[in-house]
Parts: sequence; C-alpha cells; structure tokens
Amino acid sequence: DRPFVLIAGPCQIESLAHARETAAALVEVTRNLDIPLIYKSSYDKANRTSASSQRGVGMAAGLDILRTIKAEFDLPVITDVHDAAQCAAVAEVVDILQIPAFLCRQTDLLAAAAATGRAIHVKKGQFLAPWDMQQVSKKLESFGAKRILVCERGVSFGYNTLVSDMRALSYLAATGWPVIFDATHSVQQPGGLGGTSGGQRQFVPLLARAALSIGVAGIFMETHEDPDHAPSDGPNMVPLARLQEVLSDLKAFDGLAKQRPLIQLA
Amino acid sequence: DRPFVLIAGPCQIESLAHARETAAALVEVTRNLDIPLIYKSSYDKANRTSASSQRGVGMAAGLDILRTIKAEFDLPVITDVHDAAQCAAVAEVVDILQIPAFLCRQTDLLAAAAATGRAIHVKKGQFLAPWDMQQVSKKLESFGAKRILVCERGVSFGYNTLVSDMRALSYLAATGWPVIFDATHSVQQPGGLGGTSGGQRQFVPLLARAALSIGVAGIFMETHEDPDHAPSDGPNMVPLARLQEVLSDLKAFDGLAKQRPLIQLA
Amino acid sequence: DRPFVLIAGPCQIESLAHARETAAALVEVTRNLDIPLIYKSSYDKANRTSASSQRGVGMAAGLDILRTIKAEFDLPVITDVHDAAQCAAVAEVVDILQIPAFLCRQTDLLAAAAATGRAIHVKKGQFLAPWDMQQVSKKLESFGAKRILVCERGVSFGYNTLVSDMRALSYLAATGWPVIFDATHSVQQPGGLGGTSGGQRQFVPLLARAALSIGVAGIFMETHEDPDHAPSDGPNMVPLARLQEVLSDLKAFDGLAKQRPLIQLA
Amino acid sequence: DRPFVLIAGPCQIESLAHARETAAALVEVTRNLDIPLIYKSSYDKANRTSASSQRGVGMAAGLDILRTIKAEFDLPVITDVHDAAQCAAVAEVVDILQIPAFLCRQTDLLAAAAATGRAIHVKKGQFLAPWDMQQVSKKLESFGAKRILVCERGVSFGYNTLVSDMRALSYLAATGWPVIFDATHSVQQPGGLGGTSGGQRQFVPLLARAALSIGVAGIFMETHEDPDHAPSDGPNMVPLARLQEVLSDLKAFDGLAKQRPLIQLA
Repeated sequence: DRPFVLIAGPCQIESLAHARETAAALVEVTRNLDIPLIYKSSYDKANRTSASSQRGVGMAAGLDILRTIKAEFDLPVITDVHDAAQCAAVAEVVDILQIPAFLCRQTDLLAAAAATGRAIHVKKGQFLAPWDMQQVSKKLESFGAKRILVCERGVSFGYNTLVSDMRALSYLAATGWPVIFDATHSVQQPGGLGGTSGGQRQFVPLLARAALSIGVAGIFMETHEDPDHAPSDGPNMVPLARLQEVLSDLKAFDGLAKQRPLIQLA
Repeated sequence: DRPFVLIAGPCQIESLAHARETAAALVEVTRNLDIPLIYKSSYDKANRTSASSQRGVGMAAGLDILRTIKAEFDLPVITDVHDAAQCAAVAEVVDILQIPAFLCRQTDLLAAAAATGRAIHVKKGQFLAPWDMQQVSKKLESFGAKRILVCERGVSFGYNTLVSDMRALSYLAATGWPVIFDATHSVQQPGGLGGTSGGQRQFVPLLARAALSIGVAGIFMETHEDPDHAPSDGPNMVPLARLQEVLSDLKAFDGLAKQRPLIQLA
Repeated sequence: DRPFVLIAGPCQIESLAHARETAAALVEVTRNLDIPLIYKSSYDKANRTSASSQRGVGMAAGLDILRTIKAEFDLPVITDVHDAAQCAAVAEVVDILQIPAFLCRQTDLLAAAAATGRAIHVKKGQFLAPWDMQQVSKKLESFGAKRILVCERGVSFGYNTLVSDMRALSYLAATGWPVIFDATHSVQQPGGLGGTSGGQRQFVPLLARAALSIGVAGIFMETHEDPDHAPSDGPNMVPLARLQEVLSDLKAFDGLAKQRPLIQLA
Repeated sequence: DRPFVLIAGPCQIESLAHARETAAALVEVTRNLDIPLIYKSSYDKANRTSASSQRGVGMAAGLDILRTIKAEFDLPVITDVHDAAQCAAVAEVVDILQIPAFLCRQTDLLAAAAATGRAIHVKKGQFLAPWDMQQVSKKLESFGAKRILVCERGVSFGYNTLVSDMRALSYLAATGWPVIFDATHSVQQPGGLGGTSGGQRQFVPLLARAALSIGVAGIFMETHEDPDHAPSDGPNMVPLARLQEVLSDLKAFDGLAKQRPLIQLA
C-alpha cells in the first residue's frame, strides 16, 4: 500500500561522468515527484546476443563507479551478478543484488547472493511460469535470504517476442515478496535485430500503467539521455528527458491503485 | 475520452424471466454508477466444445426475449450472429451485431452483418495478431459498415490458455474504431475442463483494471446470479452480486485514464 | 498400415482448363508413384485476410468444375464448406466435405456436413489443443458422421506464426480416425505479409517427412504450376514441377513408417 | 551423411557402480546396433526447480567417475558446465563440454569453454529463436572453438510446456555445425509437477524419429534403469531396458534419411 519505488538508471555503466549525470537527472526528477529511487546500472552485459556487442566497464571499475554514485547522491544502488564468485565483492558496494532472468534457477548463484545478506532482486525467467517463481523465492529463502524482490519482465511468446501476462503479477505476489514490474525489458524483442535485441519503447508507458494499476511495489525502468546511441538496450530504454512526464503519469495510477486493493472474486 | 460503456449480460439467454431479472439488476447497478449499459446475451452458443453442451433457446425465441428486454428497460441490446443468413433477422431487433472471434475473418458473415446497417462489434480471433484487425475492420468498411467496435479477448498461448497482450489495445485503437476489452472471455481456458472450457474468474478485475487504465471505450463482461450453475461460461462469469463492487472499481480507473492520454514515446 | 493417400490440388479453382491441367499432372505423378489421389480445390476462399483478395469462382461454377474433374479423371474430390447451407449441394458432387480450421467447432456446420452422409475431413483449429479434437470428432459422430478424417495444420505460436507440434499427430490418432497432415498450410504465416498471408514453402518437405515418419494416413498438399502468381496461398504451395520429387521422397519414409509401428513407452 | 551418434547416459552421476552398470548396458546396446556412443552424465544439476531436489555428487567426485568410465569402456564422455571456473578442470577429463540451454548466451561461460580446446555441445535456450543460435555459435567461434555441436531441446510454448519446432533443425544446420536433437529434454514439462519438472516419455520415440528423418548428426537421450525412481528427469528418461528397441527403430529412419538429402524448394 506504499507508493511505488523506482529502480532506474542506464542499462550499462558507461563512465563515472555518465553515471553522475544520469544519477543527478534521476534524483531531480524523483525528488520533484517524491518517488523513492534506487539507482541501477550494470558493470557487465554478460549475455549479449553477439560477442561483438559492448559488455561494459567490468566489475572492478563498475563497482567503483556505483560506490561513488551511492556516496555522492546518497542513493541505494543495485546491480546484477552473473556468477557466484561475483556476489561477495558486489555486495560490499550495492544495497541489492540482482539475479538476471536467464539465471533465475541457477542454484549456486542464488545461494551465493543470499549468503551476502543483501536484498535480492530476482527476475522471472522468460521460460518460467509465474507460479514457478515460488520455487525460486523458496530457494533463496532456504539459503537465508531475508529480503527478496520478485520481478516480472515478460514471457516467451513465439520467436523474438515477449508478452506481459498481467496475471503474473498476482502469482508473483503470492510468493509473499514485493513485486517489481520491469517496464523496459518487457518490451524487448530478443534477438529481434539479428545481431542485437530490438525493443518497443512506445509500449513502456502503456505496460507500466497497467502494472501499477493492478498494484506493484515498484517499477524497473532503464533510461538514457540518448537511447538510440546507447551501447545496449537502446530500443527499449526511456529517454531521460521524457522520464518526468512518464513517472508523473505512473504516480497518478499508483496512487489510485494503492487506495483500492484488487477485488477478490472466489 | 468519454466514460466507458458496459456490455454485459448472461452468456446465454435462458428464459424471459431470467433475462428480465438480470437486466433489472444490471440497470440498477449501472444507474447507481452512471455507466452506460448495453445488454448482451446469446440465443445460440454455436461453437460449444462438446455437442452435448446446452446451446440455448434458439434464434426466434431469443430475439423475442431481446426485443422485450430492449423495450421494457429501454436498453440497447447486442447479440452474436454465426451465419450470414441470421444477420437480417437479428438486425431487426438488436442495436449491435456481434461477430464471434472464431468467425472474425469469415467474409460472408462480415458482409451480411455490414449490410444490415447496424453497428458491428467484432472480436479479434484468438489466432490473430492485433495489427491484423486492421484487415478485419477494413473488410467491414468495404462492405459499408458505418459503426464498428473492435474487441480484444485474448490470444492463444500454448494449449488451453489465452494471454491478454495489453499492447493489443493500442494496435486495435489504430483501426480508428472504439476498442472494447472482453474481460470475461479473456480469462477463458478453452477446452480446459475436457468437455467444456474452464476459466479464471479471479483475474477479471485485474485484467479489466489494466485495460481501462490503458484506455478503452468499453468493457464486455458476462455475469450471472449463480455462475457455477450457469449453462455456459460459468467459470469466467462475474457473479451478479459482485458487479457493483467490480464496476465501481473500474470506474475509478477509467476516470483517471480518460483524464490522462497515454504518453507517446517515439 | 496402408500407404499414405495424397489430398492435393490448387488452393483455388481458377477455371475448368486450369483444373484439368492440374488434375492431369497430379494423376500422372501419383500413378507413377502408385499413390492414391484425392483432388482438392476450393470454390470460395471465405476467410481471406483482406476483402480485396480474390475469393474464387463461387459455389455453382466451382461444383461444376469439380464434377467434371471427378468424372473425366475418375478421381475422388474434396472441397471445403463454410456454411451449413452449402453442405447438401456440395455433397452431391464431392466425396469428402472439408471443414476449415477456423470453423472446426461450429456446431451447425458440423451437423449439416455429417447429415450429408459424406466423409468429413476436419482441420484442427489453430487455437485448439490437439486433445480437444476428440470433442470435434465426437460432435461429428453424434451427428451421424460415419467416416471422418482429422487434420493437423499447425497451432498458433506468437503472432503471424504457426508451429507444427508433432505430438499432435498422436493425440489426433487417439480419436480413432485417420490422421492427415496438411503440409502446406502448416507453413503458412497468417497475415504475415500485411494484406495477405505469407508462407515458408521451403519447410514443406521437412515437415511432411517428419509427419510421415511418425505415421499418418495421408498428406494434404496444395500445389500450383506457378505458385508465385497463384491467386491465394502462393507462398506455401509446392510447385507442380517439383511434386514428383517431393512425393517420391515422402513415399520412402511412409513405406518405412508403415512397417514399423511407433514404439510405445509407458 | 554419416550415421547418427548417440549421446546417452543417466541424467545424474549417481555413483561409480551405477555409472559402470549404465555404461556397460549402453555399450552393449550400441555395439549391437553399430551406433557410435558418447557417454553423458552430470555431476551437478545446477538449476533444479527446487532447492530441496538432489543436485548430484559434485564436480570432483563426478569427474573421477567420468574419468573411470572413459578409461574402462574406452568411450568419449561429455558433461555439462555451469560456471566459467569449472571449464578447465572438466576439460581435463571429458571430450566434450556441454553448455546448458539456460546458459547458452552467457558470454564468460562460452569463452571459458572455448578456451579449453575441447569440443562444445551447446543447447539452444528455450527462449531463443533457432536462427539466433547463429549468434551463439559465432560467439564460440570468436573465442576459438574449433568443434561445436548445436542442440535443439524445445522452445517455450505457453506455461510449463515446450514444443519441438522441427524447422529449428534446419536453422541450426545453417550454423554450419552438426545438429543434435535432445529427445528427452524436448519432452520435459518445466516445473510441471510443482516442485519438479514433469515429462512425457511417451513422445521420445515419436520426436526422435521425426528429427532423424529430417536429418540430424546425433541424438541426445537420457536413460535410466528405473526412471520413475531416478533422482532427476525421471518422467522424461527412456528406460534402459527399452533402449535397444528404440535405437533400432531410429537407426532405420536415420539410414533412410542419410541416403536422401532433404529436397530444397526455393
């Protein structure tokens, strides 16, 4: 019943300067709108479609930048881990470790993430039924995780396409953990551009509105000052200059949804 | 930008008495909430899973009942046609002819429906991409249809399951015609109970809210005073006693959505 | 355990001359290979994507042509019906009435087709689980049908795409009726070319081989002397000049499959 | 055009004694049938649905057992790796490293596997379009892999279900590498039993036949002397006692397919 939190940032950590500029812009927008912000950015895009795509600055450099952002802007930060061995080092910097969708069932990664004591944000695999996220959260709980966020980011629907099944939000809520809706990866078209993934940015406001109206704890949304020239996920990121407008819209629907619990029909 | 209209009624015409009771209840609820009502009920369930399922009262008896309801309650009425030969007779009674989803590409049926001069409510086939509804509405236009409503009711997703792709509402709107969201058939599980279709009534409020938040012209919702004993579609109909609560909720989201056009990201 | 039968012909009846030429070519090829032939062609394409697409010669002219082909070439013929009212007239000419996939659950059409006493070839809807064809064949049986053929032609898989689930052949066989594999519609891309459907002709030999290796009673395959200029279904039809080669290949796999019943693992 | 190779073994390494018994049985069956055998078994089931499911004997113990099997039976062996750090150690023992389907796009894992110089067997993700395996094999090639096998094991189709799109075999072949059809994981029902995955063992002979008839280089098939009591993947494994019968059947279709290249229609 609390207002939604925003997990946002550029898909990749590009540089300290870029991270600072983006964080500053995000802080301004979210303060204007009174939306809690968690800064997200990745030090490594570990599963790019093609080996020739840019992967990012790497773990050490990336964590340095996230540490700086966290300190300078007094923001909680989140980043994704791709290997059990990364979890401890990442946990020294970030507030929340993120488990990528493809890896949501990798037991060792879940165990290592849980062992850090940090909160875990786990994305539902594109291949997973929403009720099967119960098993994922139970795995994390059995490894000692105390705070979990479960995230919907679309399910495979034919080839190179995802669909957002809004019923999934209800199944995810049944895990007992807060539900995040990833509004920008849900409009990805995996592999849809041949060597890279495509995306349908135009549907981000539509799907995010639907999710918030149903009722979620937070929205995950990647953003960039120039998405069409971003090193990854450009087709689905929201232009930074439009973010205030988008979030203001979402805030209105979130406010209404938080006043009105969903009607339960037996 | 106008408030949503409700197309509602029991799946089947069961008897005049039953139709009267249902219409009276619907009129009361929708007057309380100031929601425009179109009464819907079918004289023939022409594509039941099994031949032993109840089909209904038949066209002549059904049209008599609809004529009575229309006159007594001063309500516009809608029913579905399954064959070109039925269109003229049905059009003498109803305000809107409905084209069933399986039949949305049957050219003769579309032509005959359009020829009546009545408004046409056409459901998107479960096998159809949302952008292909452009061809359906163009077919109707080419046959002279002057008022069309296009309806989303779920798309095939694996076996015995539908998924509501909320992006479809946007593609349907691109036809230029008002978009209806069928909240009760969208939760059908076709053939899911062996000899009959199953349904997930519990997701009706969730999906309808999402659709109205995105922005639609109307909601289609079947209802029954005792769904678990209804002759068809029981698992997905909304209990009549809960309708006011459900509609009141939807009205709040519709009101907000109609004030706020969806943000367009290029 | 008997060799497969071929249901083949051009998608549309274009003219008597065209039907004669195609039938003559088909007779020659199938005699060479000793494959039983049923001549198929449609007098009306009743559910074209667009209203401006060619629908065909119409029922009266079409049936005249089919009657001539049947007599001149001493061939059984099959065509599809789209409305209960057409069944009796069509049954006077053809040996087998075909129920289109979109219409496989239309009770009145099934009843009228069954009432003719002719054999019925019913295609599984793209929206239907294969086990639900039991309900379709039971409907036909309850209406008195004595000979039924059940046909697999792909299932909806995302948008504008079908997939051939080869397990479906096993579920269809469980109806107790002979199973036909429609090798050319299974590679359709519904609506995939905007105003018309696309197709992947290149996969016809692959899918037909797979189906025959699993074991089916027959193959349905549309063919044309110049598919790229055919009035409908060109992208998925097999060029007539390649048919002998394709069928010869299929015959080899059919022969092997008919010697070797599928192994049943409990 | 060479006869198919069989990659087979129990899903998990259970013990040296169990591995020996299974290998002995597999050697006998495949010698009888003159089918080249690669022994497969996993030391760790790293992505079980539930944390309480058995994961296996672990890497050190598992590699010891595989080393023994390889030496005693003079067999090539294959096992799956789940983390870049495992690749070097595994490569000291096995002939082929296997990349699990969920991990097929994890760049670090592909790089580490390629760096070993061993052959790589990479499974197509359930979320991946078959043409996108080109990017996966290119990634491996760019990291120096000299021998690659690409594997089809089903694609997501609704929830808890996979479908085998036989066209995928053709797209995989376009990578230029030998194609393997995984006949037992293709019939998995992911998460279908709640805490574990279900499976449809009965469809293994059907799908494997279809794949071999189309033409593949090899079949992957897990087997167990008592599948219903196996620690993992029981519902989809083939009983060891039935393997000779199944393989004998497949050999007949493979023989025919290898004589007859697929017909190419432009």
